[in-house]
Amino acid sequence: MIIMKATAKANTNIALIKYWGKRDETLFLPMNSSLSITLDHFNTITTVEFCKSFDKDIFLLNNLPASDKESNKVFRFLDKVRNLAGVNLHAVVSSENKVPTAAGFASSASGFAALAAAAAKALDLELNTKEISILARQGSGSACRSVYGGYVEWKKGIQEDGKDSFASQLLSEQDWKISILSVLVAGEQKKVSSREGMKRTVETSPFYAGWLQTVEKDLEDAKEAIMSREFEKLGHVVEANALKMHATMLGAKPPVLYWQSGTMDVIHHIQYLRLTGIPVFFTIDAGSNVKVLCLPKDEAIVYESLLTLPTVQKVFICHPGSGITYLE
Amino acid sequence: MIIMKATAKANTNIALIKYWGKRDETLFLPMNSSLSITLDHFNTITTVEFCKSFDKDIFLLNNLPASDKESNKVFRFLDKVRNLAGVNLHAVVSSENKVPTAAGFASSASGFAALAAAAAKALDLELNTKEISILARQGSGSACRSVYGGYVEWKKGIQEDGKDSFASQLLSEQDWKISILSVLVAGEQKKVSSREGMKRTVETSPFYAGWLQTVEKDLEDAKEAIMSREFEKLGHVVEANALKMHATMLGAKPPVLYWQSGTMDVIHHIQYLRLTGIPVFFTIDAGSNVKVLCLPKDEAIVYESLLTLPTVQKVFICHPGSGITYLE
Repeated sequence: MIIMKATAKANTNIALIKYWGKRDETLFLPMNSSLSITLDHFNTITTVEFCKSFDKDIFLLNNLPASDKESNKVFRFLDKVRNLAGVNLHAVVSSENKVPTAAGFASSASGFAALAAAAAKALDLELNTKEISILARQGSGSACRSVYGGYVEWKKGIQEDGKDSFASQLLSEQDWKISILSVLVAGEQKKVSSREGMKRTVETSPFYAGWLQTVEKDLEDAKEAIMSREFEKLGHVVEANALKMHATMLGAKPPVLYWQSGTMDVIHHIQYLRLTGIPVFFTIDAGSNVKVLCLPKDEAIVYESLLTLPTVQKVFICHPGSGITYLE
Repeated sequence: MIIMKATAKANTNIALIKYWGKRDETLFLPMNSSLSITLDHFNTITTVEFCKSFDKDIFLLNNLPASDKESNKVFRFLDKVRNLAGVNLHAVVSSENKVPTAAGFASSASGFAALAAAAAKALDLELNTKEISILARQGSGSACRSVYGGYVEWKKGIQEDGKDSFASQLLSEQDWKISILSVLVAGEQKKVSSREGMKRTVETSPFYAGWLQTVEKDLEDAKEAIMSREFEKLGHVVEANALKMHATMLGAKPPVLYWQSGTMDVIHHIQYLRLTGIPVFFTIDAGSNVKVLCLPKDEAIVYESLLTLPTVQKVFICHPGSGITYLE
């Protein structure tokens, strides 16, 4: 029995300039370019095995059969890889997801990056990193950024087929070490998925045009700050960009509000710390948790002070991490 | 000694469709039309006395000399009234302000409405209510709405001289009784004044165009709901309009964020109450406090439940109230 098998590991990433809105729902083509840091914790390790003898696809998540909804996303993605390879083999996909829901990070970024890499390698597709990025994007948009380590830009591209919509590395994880603290706040689980929030914003918010008008400039400013290692310049643009993304949602019909009271507590605390002279900034994804950026020298004091807030439940500390690695 | 004297009382008002942005800073001409309810509490009673023998203007606030900043605003306003009357007399203005800062309402609306009415009457200007509205607007924009009782619309107008920018009554305070609860939340005083927040938004927010594109439609929807006494229809548009106003500020450079953790607690609590079947809605002005709208039959239960939130400090209950009244 011939089994075509590969295992890959990918880290999740945190967007500094946000991806918000699709121009193509099937190919996961974004309305705007974005920029992220791939993190050194919270990864997914995925093994893909193709075999002629398998009569159906199977997806195991943390050694258990995944839900139909999650399985179907994986199977539709396998179809794209099979298409590329011109084969018609079923697969067993086994993922170990080390992105705890509690950490407030999406696991789809690391999940589809690892799956794209492992599936392509199992079928001997010999894709380069750019091609893996394009493939991963078709599972989950932000996954195309997790293919690379460090500081990563995802250029939106303009082609209809998405061949020019992929990520590339700006700086490696060794080039500039900063600290990213993921702050988990009390409150309810989010009621509107990112996918739905994004869609509703694009379709109904009168502010979406303003977002698109300014986000590419934000990205240029952030890139400049990263290339010249200007932390404060980066922090200000990152914070403003996150607030703008949330503002676009407040204009949607009906409005989308992801913030909880703890979100405000952390925001005001960060602004207070900044008044005391510590260069520290925040960003917020489509949810209530806050990600805090600071310099490694201030990491301990920022960590300790965040834990004093009654609405803060947990704080995870990360740093820039690597892109895809192949195991075995 | 001839003293020309009059006393007027005006109530403050709460905007349901917000006034946000000036097209003329001197004449207080707004970028958009707005809609408010004049309240039955929180008023200002102002006596104006003009006399040849006075050699300067004096402004007493709650029986004490007011600050230079506040006094100068009143004196510049008196200049406009003197201009209208073609006289050159100094005045003593004595205001009793019953809008506690703690109630989270601006006192400038009731303040300049009462001052406009009293000063005009003292000088026998014989202005009609529309003309008093135009005059009051030149002290503080929202003051033009406090001239009328009940449900009031302020049409922005298009003329450069502001002669077509004044308020009018949609429904009187007797026509439709609803409950307005002003919810005071814990947290810091606001750091950015409404005037500055408004200006920064107009000048720097990429979302301001989207605000202007949709606010007149919001106003039409709100007017329709008021005229047909459809409370839920009114509530939804009021809530969405407030969130949009705050969204425009989040896009300003630097961003303006008035919300505190208590603001989020009240918002989520109102949304929760709505899920239990109570028609209850919120609006938020340029600050952290929340104003809650409900029907009088639900007033007690909404009041009690708001007081259970740890971040709520106090709740004031109001109803639609009257416009300007003359005393003595």
